[in-house]
Amino acid sequence: MNKLERLTTGLGEECGVFGAYDLDGGDVTPSIYYGLFALQHRGQESCGIAVTDTCGTRRVLSQKGLGHVDDVFDEESLEKLKGNLGVGHVRYSTAGGSCAENAQPLVINYVKGTLAIAHNGNLVNASALRRELEYTGAIFQTTVDSEVIAYHIARERLHVSTVEDAVKNAMKKIKGAYALVIGSPRKLIGVRDPLGIKPLCIGMKDNTYILASESCAITAAGAEFVRDVLPGEIVSFTKDGIASDMSMAVSANQQARCIFEYIYFARTDSTIDGVNVYHARIKAGKALAESYPVEADLVVGVPDSGLVAAKGYSEQSGIPYGMAFHKNSYVGRTFIKPKQSDRESSVKIKLNVIPEVVKGKRIVMVDDSMVRGTTCANIIRMLKKAGATEVHVRISSPPFLFPCYFGTDVPSNEHLIAHSHTPEQICQMIDADTLGYMEVEKLKNMVGGLSFCDACFTGKYPMPVPGRDISHEFEQST
Amino acid sequence: MNKLERLTTGLGEECGVFGAYDLDGGDVTPSIYYGLFALQHRGQESCGIAVTDTCGTRRVLSQKGLGHVDDVFDEESLEKLKGNLGVGHVRYSTAGGSCAENAQPLVINYVKGTLAIAHNGNLVNASALRRELEYTGAIFQTTVDSEVIAYHIARERLHVSTVEDAVKNAMKKIKGAYALVIGSPRKLIGVRDPLGIKPLCIGMKDNTYILASESCAITAAGAEFVRDVLPGEIVSFTKDGIASDMSMAVSANQQARCIFEYIYFARTDSTIDGVNVYHARIKAGKALAESYPVEADLVVGVPDSGLVAAKGYSEQSGIPYGMAFHKNSYVGRTFIKPKQSDRESSVKIKLNVIPEVVKGKRIVMVDDSMVRGTTCANIIRMLKKAGATEVHVRISSPPFLFPCYFGTDVPSNEHLIAHSHTPEQICQMIDADTLGYMEVEKLKNMVGGLSFCDACFTGKYPMPVPGRDISHEFEQST
Amino acid sequence: MNKLERLTTGLGEECGVFGAYDLDGGDVTPSIYYGLFALQHRGQESCGIAVTDTCGTRRVLSQKGLGHVDDVFDEESLEKLKGNLGVGHVRYSTAGGSCAENAQPLVINYVKGTLAIAHNGNLVNASALRRELEYTGAIFQTTVDSEVIAYHIARERLHVSTVEDAVKNAMKKIKGAYALVIGSPRKLIGVRDPLGIKPLCIGMKDNTYILASESCAITAAGAEFVRDVLPGEIVSFTKDGIASDMSMAVSANQQARCIFEYIYFARTDSTIDGVNVYHARIKAGKALAESYPVEADLVVGVPDSGLVAAKGYSEQSGIPYGMAFHKNSYVGRTFIKPKQSDRESSVKIKLNVIPEVVKGKRIVMVDDSMVRGTTCANIIRMLKKAGATEVHVRISSPPFLFPCYFGTDVPSNEHLIAHSHTPEQICQMIDADTLGYMEVEKLKNMVGGLSFCDACFTGKYPMPVPGRDISHEFEQST
Amino acid sequence: MNKLERLTTGLGEECGVFGAYDLDGGDVTPSIYYGLFALQHRGQESCGIAVTDTCGTRRVLSQKGLGHVDDVFDEESLEKLKGNLGVGHVRYSTAGGSCAENAQPLVINYVKGTLAIAHNGNLVNASALRRELEYTGAIFQTTVDSEVIAYHIARERLHVSTVEDAVKNAMKKIKGAYALVIGSPRKLIGVRDPLGIKPLCIGMKDNTYILASESCAITAAGAEFVRDVLPGEIVSFTKDGIASDMSMAVSANQQARCIFEYIYFARTDSTIDGVNVYHARIKAGKALAESYPVEADLVVGVPDSGLVAAKGYSEQSGIPYGMAFHKNSYVGRTFIKPKQSDRESSVKIKLNVIPEVVKGKRIVMVDDSMVRGTTCANIIRMLKKAGATEVHVRISSPPFLFPCYFGTDVPSNEHLIAHSHTPEQICQMIDADTLGYMEVEKLKNMVGGLSFCDACFTGKYPMPVPGRDISHEFEQST
Repeated sequence: MNKLERLTTGLGEECGVFGAYDLDGGDVTPSIYYGLFALQHRGQESCGIAVTDTCGTRRVLSQKGLGHVDDVFDEESLEKLKGNLGVGHVRYSTAGGSCAENAQPLVINYVKGTLAIAHNGNLVNASALRRELEYTGAIFQTTVDSEVIAYHIARERLHVSTVEDAVKNAMKKIKGAYALVIGSPRKLIGVRDPLGIKPLCIGMKDNTYILASESCAITAAGAEFVRDVLPGEIVSFTKDGIASDMSMAVSANQQARCIFEYIYFARTDSTIDGVNVYHARIKAGKALAESYPVEADLVVGVPDSGLVAAKGYSEQSGIPYGMAFHKNSYVGRTFIKPKQSDRESSVKIKLNVIPEVVKGKRIVMVDDSMVRGTTCANIIRMLKKAGATEVHVRISSPPFLFPCYFGTDVPSNEHLIAHSHTPEQICQMIDADTLGYMEVEKLKNMVGGLSFCDACFTGKYPMPVPGRDISHEFEQST
Repeated sequence: MNKLERLTTGLGEECGVFGAYDLDGGDVTPSIYYGLFALQHRGQESCGIAVTDTCGTRRVLSQKGLGHVDDVFDEESLEKLKGNLGVGHVRYSTAGGSCAENAQPLVINYVKGTLAIAHNGNLVNASALRRELEYTGAIFQTTVDSEVIAYHIARERLHVSTVEDAVKNAMKKIKGAYALVIGSPRKLIGVRDPLGIKPLCIGMKDNTYILASESCAITAAGAEFVRDVLPGEIVSFTKDGIASDMSMAVSANQQARCIFEYIYFARTDSTIDGVNVYHARIKAGKALAESYPVEADLVVGVPDSGLVAAKGYSEQSGIPYGMAFHKNSYVGRTFIKPKQSDRESSVKIKLNVIPEVVKGKRIVMVDDSMVRGTTCANIIRMLKKAGATEVHVRISSPPFLFPCYFGTDVPSNEHLIAHSHTPEQICQMIDADTLGYMEVEKLKNMVGGLSFCDACFTGKYPMPVPGRDISHEFEQST
Repeated sequence: MNKLERLTTGLGEECGVFGAYDLDGGDVTPSIYYGLFALQHRGQESCGIAVTDTCGTRRVLSQKGLGHVDDVFDEESLEKLKGNLGVGHVRYSTAGGSCAENAQPLVINYVKGTLAIAHNGNLVNASALRRELEYTGAIFQTTVDSEVIAYHIARERLHVSTVEDAVKNAMKKIKGAYALVIGSPRKLIGVRDPLGIKPLCIGMKDNTYILASESCAITAAGAEFVRDVLPGEIVSFTKDGIASDMSMAVSANQQARCIFEYIYFARTDSTIDGVNVYHARIKAGKALAESYPVEADLVVGVPDSGLVAAKGYSEQSGIPYGMAFHKNSYVGRTFIKPKQSDRESSVKIKLNVIPEVVKGKRIVMVDDSMVRGTTCANIIRMLKKAGATEVHVRISSPPFLFPCYFGTDVPSNEHLIAHSHTPEQICQMIDADTLGYMEVEKLKNMVGGLSFCDACFTGKYPMPVPGRDISHEFEQST
Repeated sequence: MNKLERLTTGLGEECGVFGAYDLDGGDVTPSIYYGLFALQHRGQESCGIAVTDTCGTRRVLSQKGLGHVDDVFDEESLEKLKGNLGVGHVRYSTAGGSCAENAQPLVINYVKGTLAIAHNGNLVNASALRRELEYTGAIFQTTVDSEVIAYHIARERLHVSTVEDAVKNAMKKIKGAYALVIGSPRKLIGVRDPLGIKPLCIGMKDNTYILASESCAITAAGAEFVRDVLPGEIVSFTKDGIASDMSMAVSANQQARCIFEYIYFARTDSTIDGVNVYHARIKAGKALAESYPVEADLVVGVPDSGLVAAKGYSEQSGIPYGMAFHKNSYVGRTFIKPKQSDRESSVKIKLNVIPEVVKGKRIVMVDDSMVRGTTCANIIRMLKKAGATEVHVRISSPPFLFPCYFGTDVPSNEHLIAHSHTPEQICQMIDADTLGYMEVEKLKNMVGGLSFCDACFTGKYPMPVPGRDISHEFEQST
């Protein structure tokens, strides 16, 4: 799957989070703004920033809205949002749920003041928890999990003496994937779920602490990467420095990082839990070359996410790497689709083949995933029309077969070509000469032995998920 | 005070509410849209509509935003908001508190489904109630009283079998002014606080029930006025017809209608609790003529809200009524104020004197209120420059001396000219020849003996208000 | 006809013009901005400002756009438009011709530098002149007459030594109505066509000269009215003072002021050629009372333009003047019309009857004109529904029977109710009890004997117009 | 120079043109829309479309505006712009000249009806021609050359019997670079200046003829490339087919294609005059490798325009090609620049180094041009900070030393680093280890011997240009 296909099929990630706290009292809003730009690929539906001045009013100022970072913020609004502690969020647009109310960070008043909460991930017991809360008189104004989390923190806070402990107690109730950045009047807190499904990392610049979904956002904010927040860790930044609570952590082999971060979500210039995304994709390409060698003249990647794996395939196979496509970077959100029946055109306007590169060549075409297969088929058609004599498709992830409950928006089965067709059938449907998917067993190698979640390929969920009896799947996640 | 002055001084009302339920299943959104247009004078900061289809999905669709009704809604958004039961709101912009989060109706999910709540008025114990709720783990996402009310309804609903009873129990806890329109999945509910501070009335059109802050909105929606919701009444419209619960009502002489609705807030074509606003203002003008007669050639009203009282003054005194001003209806929100020191110009662009009407004349100039006095002084200067030989100012309300805790946004004392100056001093400051304020005792006559609240003139609050020991003021409100 | 009706029928004026030149070098853009606000009633389709710094770059800066003054200009754009000599324009939206290209002022470069031209009126020989110019190789980028005028000035300028002389020579060729404001690099020039069809007047404030379609705009700019530009006059303001060229003037009795400026177009606070618009309308009302007396209880005017004539009727007849309507000032351009068949509703939302005022009363209802009659019929229906026992309609202008070729946008015959029906028939169609139109003979009295054009009522055009043999009508225009 | 640098230095192209004519009467607006998207890289200031229905009204509908294609057009505006013959344009923003009036196509009325003209390029005698026209009474409303061209066509048309002949006669007067697409009521005309400085090509799809600046736009419109318009050719498409007039053509060796189209302006998937842009860049990279070999570990290109030349360098040198950068595609026009003094950050947010790729490596970094050198210096700093041990810069064009008079917006000398520094000095200034520029002599090889213009490198202009005595440079341009 590439970005083109994603636009129509709805496979997608579930947000990016960012936080910053300048102990010296400087304005962190610009850093959050640059950080969110660097995380924009994780979510384009809505975004928001909430900041407070820990030395001054401690009033929380926030702005949220539908659209990209540069739709929601301009010079004037950034000017108004000044503070030395703040939280930012970009949100992915899940089908149909696009609404202003759900933009984050969620800013709440509770017994101990104000909290701003930004969440990446998905709780598997959110609706049970909502129900439970409603039965004690709670009201909900959004459909985001952050609201459920906020309620739990607020309630726990009545019984414990720090917000960190309230967070810890809340973690005992919420199940699922969550990377949280929480701004309290005097603290910036980062939390990663015990399985470490979603990434979160720590950066620093002078006396400013940074939290971000990906290391690329730390760099964009002009800071230096320090380390990852560990699975299950609650890390808290205050005037007095950093504190870490690891009491919710589980053993390393129980951890279940989302493998899709490496395959597709994260930026190639990010490093997650010690594994560089670029390297992971190079390895994926190499693994494909080992598993599915072919005689060919040129390896090409489908922009942008297939490019690195294509490079890996080329390196391993010795087949030259080529640039077969021109991607039009001006075709954006408001592009009006052609009405013609011509299925190719909407792809063609975004992506054009350079005929001189492919003419008379046997092509290995690498992409990171295949969802419905239609985009892939269109690109193959374009390549062949441009004179490619053979097109061998290599997909740097295994076939999607199972839904994700942790925040990756995989289309339902009827839209997943791999669900109802064998690779051979697919190969024929998309008019490829050969087709090879990444083998599940090789994923482990891609991330250097880290423990990860591959449930969307295997159905082996790392925790019970709603509507499935997964007792038998539950022992081991990787 | 006229609208011109209000723009700079911040005296203002606190919202308009509207509700509609078509038992036959027709779309009520257009009616709400027209109703909100008719209530726009009650609030221009933000507005919103929430609707549901009681026969279909029962999903609540809502749209809210900063701005006027025609800023927030267009053909496309109205098209998406279809339903046969809905609630609408227009909100007044209180100084500094302009924010999207506070737009209403508030839409919440609670144990029994969804509620959409629109509120006009102000609770005097809101912050105490918020605090109390926070101590049980509640979180707040807005600063509007509707959220406090919603919480109480949600909690009470756990213990009683109907939402009306939950509302009734909530009413026992909330203190202050509230006209509520509540949409539940199958009911439209109207509530007026026991003192009847804020207005609310019932209309009907075929099988559609209407609730509105003012009768003019019922007319605008193409419906017929039926009756006022009574002070303390909970009225509920369902498939089975109307139900009324009067158990929270108090005796008539304890009621405390806001007198300012008649003086200034409400539209002249509305009738509230049997008293027509136009007639009330005519009476006010007549009372002024009785109290402060003067030899003059022409009575003029300051557009728009002083016009009717001027007519009354003219009728009572026999002095001809004249049109001295042209008001520029194109000068709106985004008008950029002159930077020149010239104090008159910003008034002059909105309001121009017709010199031919006033030249050589002794003028009685009627306005509905005076806050800072600067606008009044500017208009007098314009009249005299245009050749008026005398300007006698008559104000159809008593001097503002006390803050309002029920939703009228009166500026603080230092901005109230009457607070620190005698009428004689004011007369001199604004260069009027004579000045007469409505006498407090005559207000009663203006509204035909209805029991009302005049605390902003007298300091006699109809209930305890925060930060004041008003035990001695509490026996009688009128 | 009132504004409500105009929105649907397309009767309308053709623009307002404004110019300012500060000899002391101060920025005139704010004055133009305020002036255009005061002229907004003359045109709401588009507007524009062009300014130059006569002491500095002499570069012309301009901004034009579709929409009202406050749509097209904001703080930022006003900040960029700085200059001490400038021209402004508001343009009326004629049916179908709404386009950005036609916004004025027209800014052109020609042999002697730059000209900014703002035009109010209509040339009757514009298309002949265009054709003629095209046959010498001219190209046209708009459909406005200003472009034709600009071409003539540019061509004449080759043969004469001043732009004023070029304008004069151009005036010999162009026929029709034109009030022009022209900004050249060092001069501000005002021109009025020899018949004086369209108004134009001169104001002054310190060392700033002002030109404006109406005197109300001079006041709004903080300046004092000096005098009218005379029919046929070319007035020019330079560093050396004012110069006037009257060589194109005709004798006073040949002049042909548009009578509709007094009846409807101009603001009541303007004075044109010595006749105050308010007084003219009072006289019209009085004349109606003389011509069509009736026994009644109340005289009411249809807001806004019928109000003054109603006052005149009341004064003459002795029948009390009343306020029967509330006009909703928030219903603007983007209001979405009710889709219901209910014909009344779109009127009702903008204009509501105050039932208490009219109940049981015999009403004289005064309006300034009637075009299609549907709005009038709707208002009569509303009045009767509210309890009026009789409605006597008085129209302060004669029936429209002939097209205007000078810039007033009168609908074609099939939309003019008076064209195909007698007053008796109309009276019955709109359900009035009696109906009286202003008599043509009395118009003269209304404007104190000034020579005027009443061709839209009489067909007697003051000059030959396209497509009509009007030789027989041509001797006398008034 | 890469796109990043261009944003700050103002080097840029001057527009893209597009035309389409469907003989079968189908709507060509979608094709123009897609075509303009494919040409968006040629100009981002403004764009426009003008269409007509040759079978129907023949009225020209147009829409133009400031901004990108997706800013100016939406579904509604495309719906209104229907026609079977049309012209489109994208315009580059030259410093300071950003204004709505200059948006194209220019639509004019002249003696024979309407013309829509879209122009890419720059006339060198435009101001002389303007002056000449002004002395015959012409007026100008824009500052674009299209207006000068339009005037000449309009004037010539008076003396000849076809618009093509008028165009031909106009070509005898206008000097400079021009690729024109002209829509007349029944003809679509393409013109390329005799030297062929700017590109223009012909496409076809069923019965629709296409004209476009680049072949990629033909593909985007779903059509097939047919051939280039030849230098000096007037090609005209009518109901009766194609007609070609070559009488203005010059001999092949006098032609002077802009070499910068191949180096930088055109898309890699376009082919101009038989030379594929991708191939030209590969050759440039290879030439660099031959001229400036170096021992290194990795060749990287600066995205996007340096990537292909880097590939060429890699192929020739045998040094592996690597992806060292992540480019953030979400950082667009409205990105707010960091205020920090930190010079790197604005580059870093758009472009990030992948440290894992470059760490410990000796890098050859290829870019297409260098203007001020600051961006290049920043990127080198980022590479070294990420661990690159050496950075060898290779620029695939010779140093800029002379201004372009034909439409390429080269900054003035003081901003051109090459103007005042030797390569050795530059190398030191940007902290490169070595620096190599493309040699002028090798450019010819890059475009397969086509005759081209390299005046910006050599000062040898292919025709006299304003303000230079270039008699001695004039014999030969390549």
